[in-house]
Amino acid sequence: MPDKQQTIHRASSDMGNGPKRPIMLAIAGDSASGKTTLTKGLVNALGPERITSMCVDDYHRYDRTERKELPFTPLHPDCNHLDIMEQHLQLLSRGEPILKPVYNHSTGELERPVKVEPREFIVIEGLFPLWSRLSRACFDATVYLDPPESVRRTWKVARDTSKRGYTEEQVLADLEKREPESEAFIRPQRRCADIVVRFSPIEERGESTGDPLSATVLLRPTIPHPDLLSLVGEQTSEAMHLKLLRDEDGKPVDALHIHSYASEEATRKLEEAIWNQLDVSEPLSEELGMIDGKRDGPLAITQLILLYHLVQAERRAS
Amino acid sequence: MPDKQQTIHRASSDMGNGPKRPIMLAIAGDSASGKTTLTKGLVNALGPERITSMCVDDYHRYDRTERKELPFTPLHPDCNHLDIMEQHLQLLSRGEPILKPVYNHSTGELERPVKVEPREFIVIEGLFPLWSRLSRACFDATVYLDPPESVRRTWKVARDTSKRGYTEEQVLADLEKREPESEAFIRPQRRCADIVVRFSPIEERGESTGDPLSATVLLRPTIPHPDLLSLVGEQTSEAMHLKLLRDEDGKPVDALHIHSYASEEATRKLEEAIWNQLDVSEPLSEELGMIDGKRDGPLAITQLILLYHLVQAERRAS
Repeated sequence: MPDKQQTIHRASSDMGNGPKRPIMLAIAGDSASGKTTLTKGLVNALGPERITSMCVDDYHRYDRTERKELPFTPLHPDCNHLDIMEQHLQLLSRGEPILKPVYNHSTGELERPVKVEPREFIVIEGLFPLWSRLSRACFDATVYLDPPESVRRTWKVARDTSKRGYTEEQVLADLEKREPESEAFIRPQRRCADIVVRFSPIEERGESTGDPLSATVLLRPTIPHPDLLSLVGEQTSEAMHLKLLRDEDGKPVDALHIHSYASEEATRKLEEAIWNQLDVSEPLSEELGMIDGKRDGPLAITQLILLYHLVQAERRAS
Repeated sequence: MPDKQQTIHRASSDMGNGPKRPIMLAIAGDSASGKTTLTKGLVNALGPERITSMCVDDYHRYDRTERKELPFTPLHPDCNHLDIMEQHLQLLSRGEPILKPVYNHSTGELERPVKVEPREFIVIEGLFPLWSRLSRACFDATVYLDPPESVRRTWKVARDTSKRGYTEEQVLADLEKREPESEAFIRPQRRCADIVVRFSPIEERGESTGDPLSATVLLRPTIPHPDLLSLVGEQTSEAMHLKLLRDEDGKPVDALHIHSYASEEATRKLEEAIWNQLDVSEPLSEELGMIDGKRDGPLAITQLILLYHLVQAERRAS
């Protein structure tokens, strides 16, 4: 189905024609850019009975052994069944189940597929969810995670040495090998997202990757964001503020800055105010911003903005 | 997509709207009823570049170990992802590729899925292709294989002991265990087929399962069959003849009988005559009826009738 028809199909479902469709959010970004952490808070906030999360990095065409003979890394489109990923996104967006392939990151093997049943909300995270016009047409809101490379390198080394059995040297060599394909195929998805999220230390304050990170959330005027101007203002001296910018491509965006030193009181107050704009009866979840058992303010607000879009899109669709 | 929409979609493609769709043939039947043998001749006749064959018995929900704990055999719908099978049939029928699950009959394990790209023709064989209105709506012609149980038992023991590592006792115990589910879920598909094929010995002639088998091909007036009446006549004393019958359900069918003792000259002549009714420039394939390196007349004519339907459906669709 061409992307336009997919968009029309979604809009048509919203007008009460056909079965109720799930609300879909894409979280795209390179390996170890924080996708799973961001997703986890959303799943915990809505509860696993209402939201499914799914990683689309399992659509590998080759297993690890086969890839050794091949001239590309998993970041190359030809290394993945992206047409099948697109097909599955379309099916899910129409409320149909799929049989999703499974790549085992520990063994590097492709395994038996699993059935994924759509729920009320679906978060799709991975390297390629914003790859094509058709895949993008399946989503209600799209996010690209854009940490500085220094932060991503730290995260990737930490994860791949602790959870995937690699040495630090192997991870760094892998990053270098992947760099040209990351530039060619992953990072271009940044310009297709409604929201671009960057967690980073503030260099001007002498911070480094090990310090608590601040968040910059670019909000493109492609979907209706919460009204933040009335809540945080444009005073750049404030720990939280909004700034009108030209993005890399010269196009206008709003940048919400949440500095790591913003007080818990202030971030909680902003969360409450954004949530109130939705005018829903449910209370604001306590699950947002949790990382290693502690609350992180910038992460909580970022997750809340995504939660806002899920709930808002569902209201439009129902 | 409801079955009616699937039918409309197929008809619409035939009128030049949208991409060209593949011609799809279903060959349904119980385990070891001859599906693969029948399919092989079609694939060899058209050539693997024009025709894909696919077995839909790989949509098992559980592997062999998991099934040991469960109260049903693979013949139970709940033991299979039949909704995903239906979805994949629809996708193929619209010319889209699928990522098909794989069940390894030797190990009893579910393995990495394989991509199946539709070709000009697709033969779908298995236990459940005629299971639902929606699955049936995906096909241009449907076949049910209906050998007598004595023949099927012989075939199943021969195959499962030589190719799947079971003992004869295991195979017979398995058949007994499967019988209630075969009756409940597999055999009811017989009444949904356009063509019912029965290879069997002729008891009145004192033949047994080890002898060359005769074919009875029931042709239901649900699709346009070749004109056989002008070719074989209704003389039941002839080795090949047509007989008007009431089927098990009381509905009228034409039964083409091809006795095993029909001469090669006669079966070849009938093949030529049926093929000529298609008025195509390609010569009649020499691949029909081959089994263990020898030609079998009743099998050749049965395969030719299916080939006739594939070619005829393609002409209607183009």
